Amino acid sequence: MNDREGEFEYIDWIRKRVKAGRAGLGIGDDAAMLENVPNRDTLVAVDMLMDGVHFKTSEATPEQIGHKALAVNLSDIAAMGGNPTAAVVAVCFSRQGEADFPHRFFDGLQKLADEFDVQIVGGDTNTWDGPFVVSVTALGTIYGAGVIRRWMAIPGDWILVTGELGGSIAGHHLSFTPRVREAEDMIKRANITTMIDVSDGLAADLHHILDATSQLPSIQCGANIYADRIPIRQAAREMNDGVSPLDHALGDGEDFELLLTVPEKDARRLLESPPNGVPLTHIGEITDDGVCQLIFDNGDKRDLPPSGWKHGWNE
Amino acid sequence: MNDREGEFEYIDWIRKRVKAGRAGLGIGDDAAMLENVPNRDTLVAVDMLMDGVHFKTSEATPEQIGHKALAVNLSDIAAMGGNPTAAVVAVCFSRQGEADFPHRFFDGLQKLADEFDVQIVGGDTNTWDGPFVVSVTALGTIYGAGVIRRWMAIPGDWILVTGELGGSIAGHHLSFTPRVREAEDMIKRANITTMIDVSDGLAADLHHILDATSQLPSIQCGANIYADRIPIRQAAREMNDGVSPLDHALGDGEDFELLLTVPEKDARRLLESPPNGVPLTHIGEITDDGVCQLIFDNGDKRDLPPSGWKHGWNE
Repeated sequence: MNDREGEFEYIDWIRKRVKAGRAGLGIGDDAAMLENVPNRDTLVAVDMLMDGVHFKTSEATPEQIGHKALAVNLSDIAAMGGNPTAAVVAVCFSRQGEADFPHRFFDGLQKLADEFDVQIVGGDTNTWDGPFVVSVTALGTIYGAGVIRRWMAIPGDWILVTGELGGSIAGHHLSFTPRVREAEDMIKRANITTMIDVSDGLAADLHHILDATSQLPSIQCGANIYADRIPIRQAAREMNDGVSPLDHALGDGEDFELLLTVPEKDARRLLESPPNGVPLTHIGEITDDGVCQLIFDNGDKRDLPPSGWKHGWNE
Repeated sequence: MNDREGEFEYIDWIRKRVKAGRAGLGIGDDAAMLENVPNRDTLVAVDMLMDGVHFKTSEATPEQIGHKALAVNLSDIAAMGGNPTAAVVAVCFSRQGEADFPHRFFDGLQKLADEFDVQIVGGDTNTWDGPFVVSVTALGTIYGAGVIRRWMAIPGDWILVTGELGGSIAGHHLSFTPRVREAEDMIKRANITTMIDVSDGLAADLHHILDATSQLPSIQCGANIYADRIPIRQAAREMNDGVSPLDHALGDGEDFELLLTVPEKDARRLLESPPNGVPLTHIGEITDDGVCQLIFDNGDKRDLPPSGWKHGWNE
């Protein structure tokens, strides 16, 4: 991109491309304005993705990178019990990048935004000699039931997970559909006590829930996870890297599935009719002994420590 | 920073450092929650700053970089007529950076946040081999008077600017105080028709206002700018780079002063009692001839084309 002039042209192109929508103001002022939904608080999630770390511009298409940049944030909003409504997109394009990268990147992002009725209300465009960097901030509104926190798990709650886990690096992380509709459906049908999106890996994110509950001094939550029930993605079985498919499913991360805890009665209702047709699996229960363990069908047990690789202030 | 462990420790350190405040939820969940102010819409501004482009880690202190990263966004919110309330901070630290950089960076950012009662509600922490990158998204609420747009200038309006312009690169861009209080004060005392923060340079930002008004087919706004009245920063006079102090003041950018248009009567009131003791200068008037020109005390006139160097979707 030819710095100054190119950036202006790019912004103009985006202005025309972005549909007028819910946002009070569109692109082209110092800040964007959002009309608040009465009595619905606002959720904010941000993720920064860098070339060579979260994707490789040499391997992923620009559209996939745009898709992922927004999708990871919609996944965060969904996991909090929110409906994503708007996003701002800050980018730093590489002068060494392909000339059509900025437009194809935005096309990928906008396509997902359209799919979930998310308004791109603003951003910031830069150019440099370094690798491509993008930071999307997504905003959303809480559904009527209220925000879903991490520390409300209760011993006896069933632990459920959507979709399949492991081996995301083979492609899923660039093309996944954030579980916005599934979250909405489950929130309306069940009393979800905690929910998180699996970004660091099942084990790590389960520990995030257990660590959060330990903020309440009277409860020391643990978890029994049934190893043989964990839904393993086919890609995790095909990695052939000396790591077992189960360990891939437990540790890989970037699955962007929903991990949630629900009272048994509500869990049974959800399992009878999975959200939006997406597989929902009962993988364990919250316990009161502070121990997080894997239990195998043959009776073997093993400690399940946290593991994972990515860490946000809002994860 | 030692990637995974270091990032976790850093986030824990921030959690303890950040004061509990207005935000419904603090750091440590998938997203932050903000309690909306009834009947006050939300403003969102984002800016991405990169080492070697917007600052140099080899020259600026980490505290200055943290200060600037937040200040540029508060400046945007202020220019829209908003009160900044919260921010999220996405960073990508360089593995080649100093070990205390992340903490000193955050100290600088938090100090400014405290000064303006802005709550840091979340973020995203990453590490890589590239240069340091930060993207702050600030949120704010509109004052009662409503949002201030760019396209409401009316021929006859006086053009005012706060503070001094030019030579920001000598240090001002790293230490400036965003004009939040000055904006609030002026909004409460005057009918401001347009306002923008001077980030691209006085000429460029004035043209942004004129271009915006041209969206209204019946008006073709121009501007007469009195060259000898433009308040020039001492640093611009000391550049000794062959560019005149006036041209520095017109073109440099990153002044982060407020450029506004106000009906004459309101302008006189503001000029009698400048906001928060900050200099306020009457530098020209909006005209109806579509021409943007500089007028010198000796009667000379010259076209004033746009110029500048930084371009955001929300500038």
